[in-house]
Amino acid sequence: MTPFRLLHRSSTCAARCGEISTLHGAIRTPVFMPVGTQATVKGVLPENLKDLGAQIILGNTYHLFIRPGHQLIRTLGGLHGFMHWQGPILTDSGGFQIFSLRELARITEQGAEFRSHLDGSRLFLSPEDAIQVQEALGSDIMMVLDTCIPYPATRQEAAEATALTGRWARRCRAALSGTGQLLFGIVQGGMYTDLRKESAQELVDTGFDGYAIGGLSVGEPKELMLSMLEATVPHLPTDRPVYLMGVGTPEDLVEGVRRGVDMFDCVMPTRNARNGMLFTSQGRLVIKNARYRDDPRPVDEECTCYTCRHYSRAYLRHLFQSREILASQLNSIHNLHYYCALMAAMRDAIAEDRFDEFRRQFYARRQSEAGSHHR
Amino acid sequence: MTPFRLLHRSSTCAARCGEISTLHGAIRTPVFMPVGTQATVKGVLPENLKDLGAQIILGNTYHLFIRPGHQLIRTLGGLHGFMHWQGPILTDSGGFQIFSLRELARITEQGAEFRSHLDGSRLFLSPEDAIQVQEALGSDIMMVLDTCIPYPATRQEAAEATALTGRWARRCRAALSGTGQLLFGIVQGGMYTDLRKESAQELVDTGFDGYAIGGLSVGEPKELMLSMLEATVPHLPTDRPVYLMGVGTPEDLVEGVRRGVDMFDCVMPTRNARNGMLFTSQGRLVIKNARYRDDPRPVDEECTCYTCRHYSRAYLRHLFQSREILASQLNSIHNLHYYCALMAAMRDAIAEDRFDEFRRQFYARRQSEAGSHHR
Repeated sequence: MTPFRLLHRSSTCAARCGEISTLHGAIRTPVFMPVGTQATVKGVLPENLKDLGAQIILGNTYHLFIRPGHQLIRTLGGLHGFMHWQGPILTDSGGFQIFSLRELARITEQGAEFRSHLDGSRLFLSPEDAIQVQEALGSDIMMVLDTCIPYPATRQEAAEATALTGRWARRCRAALSGTGQLLFGIVQGGMYTDLRKESAQELVDTGFDGYAIGGLSVGEPKELMLSMLEATVPHLPTDRPVYLMGVGTPEDLVEGVRRGVDMFDCVMPTRNARNGMLFTSQGRLVIKNARYRDDPRPVDEECTCYTCRHYSRAYLRHLFQSREILASQLNSIHNLHYYCALMAAMRDAIAEDRFDEFRRQFYARRQSEAGSHHR
Repeated sequence: MTPFRLLHRSSTCAARCGEISTLHGAIRTPVFMPVGTQATVKGVLPENLKDLGAQIILGNTYHLFIRPGHQLIRTLGGLHGFMHWQGPILTDSGGFQIFSLRELARITEQGAEFRSHLDGSRLFLSPEDAIQVQEALGSDIMMVLDTCIPYPATRQEAAEATALTGRWARRCRAALSGTGQLLFGIVQGGMYTDLRKESAQELVDTGFDGYAIGGLSVGEPKELMLSMLEATVPHLPTDRPVYLMGVGTPEDLVEGVRRGVDMFDCVMPTRNARNGMLFTSQGRLVIKNARYRDDPRPVDEECTCYTCRHYSRAYLRHLFQSREILASQLNSIHNLHYYCALMAAMRDAIAEDRFDEFRRQFYARRQSEAGSHHR
């Protein structure tokens, strides 16, 4: 019984619409997942998240494992009760964060040894631990513990890490205790198409509720990322959701959907919001720019988000210049709404089989406006 | 025609209930006004402010004059439109902030010369300018430009500053252009009861819509503040609202109301919230304390605020320890709700003529719980 139902397919590309069933409700795909690293999407109340169109959010196992600890979260109602979010939650496995520590981490067949970035204490996470932690957190979608591959990497480095990821994935699968939480495998393989294919096939043999594509958007050129995507998706079953991890820009989302991706997450909308960079239908807007000093217009005149309904560019610029907390709040609401609305527009376009047209217009508006907008 | 309607009076003390009519609606008194220094109550959306019971908020003329400028705010719909708050707003005159600059400010008969704390540029504000700026901001209640008096001050210093405040108050009154915005005078006099009385009488002779008591809570002992209050209020007309500026703790609010004060403002609830100090019916709670690590209870089990309805002490502690923006948001909502609910409880007690009983219980609960609470 698959938790994924395919609803529509584009007749001209790999774009598709579907629905994922989870313990906390259904998710319409393609979908963008706001990142709530430390049991909060930075600066956004859960009610605001729901209002802006978020269907599912992401929590970071590594961060929550270190602070406040998964056992504590379990006793406080799991991540849902702890953070007052009753919709679906996906947790990553901690692999990516541990690998980001590099010198502080050591990988063995058994698992990942690392030091806390908070206090330097020695910690260890095996594939089985990663499942246990995520079961305690109570997320709706869990991820296997994987080994990330730096870019660039030699073929041998990539092959070894990919093989280990495969063995760990099987151990994660075997460690499930039947909670009804979904488990996704993660395809690695670095920038080697044959390794990507092998990794995908091995994971599919093991069998997961969904398949993520890891190790992309780690510094490689955009074309390489897209070609890796094209080398991977065809080897995944069409009756399972495909999740491109940690990606990306609005353009990346459109290109990912076109290549058959169903799920995305990225810190970009919230991080950029805190830095005063806003996404609009006509490109990017840097709110501190002096040209917005007395601009009475909303960030995006076509946007229906809370921020655009009630506040001017001039006010948002004032808040940003004054380093007010409200700047992060309002900018984050806008950017997340932009991402979620973009996904909703893609879902509609796919359902009406006009995705290619949607994509052409998406780029055309940005190009035609690039020279004249926001002045 | 007075904009203040007296509704109830305590039979045992000077506490009273009333209603102030403004261009943006009526305010029930006694009332606490959250401080929105830079056209935002730090970390709180206007909708959250309304939900937590805020009737009127305060804006700072000094800050808004410097950035983004009152003319800009006027063109963007006044402070109400600019910051998306449709309830009443009171603006201070800038006097207190300018005096806080001390070495950067020079006071002459004409007005206050000062340097911007942002870029050091030379600025000047006369009493007439203060009115013009506040009329541009479009606040519902404007304050006269006053000269604050440091504590301690000699009698001569206090007398001179008080006399100048009186002359400036008349100039402010004369500068009104008939917008319907209310104007309050500010009683000074330092810690000299005779100067307080003189100042009050002079202002009453000039005639204002309400009277503020300035220059208190500037470092003097609590008893001195209360005795200055007692030396001032009896010289103010009972058919005008009385506003104690910049005060204070929950205890100060109770003592102020008992002595006839109708309005208060203070940064304490929001500033303390950002520092992790929460007000409760049983005293203060420092959220970072390790004892709250796994505490599933809300901040205050009797509180009905958004934060207490949905989040545990353990979660709030986690957010604070993790330096998350949401900590400031949720803590500010709670503390402001505490202040507003305290005022509502006092209004009810006065209406039912049981204010003394209310006050006894207010202190009794804190004392009885002081040793056992929050452990």
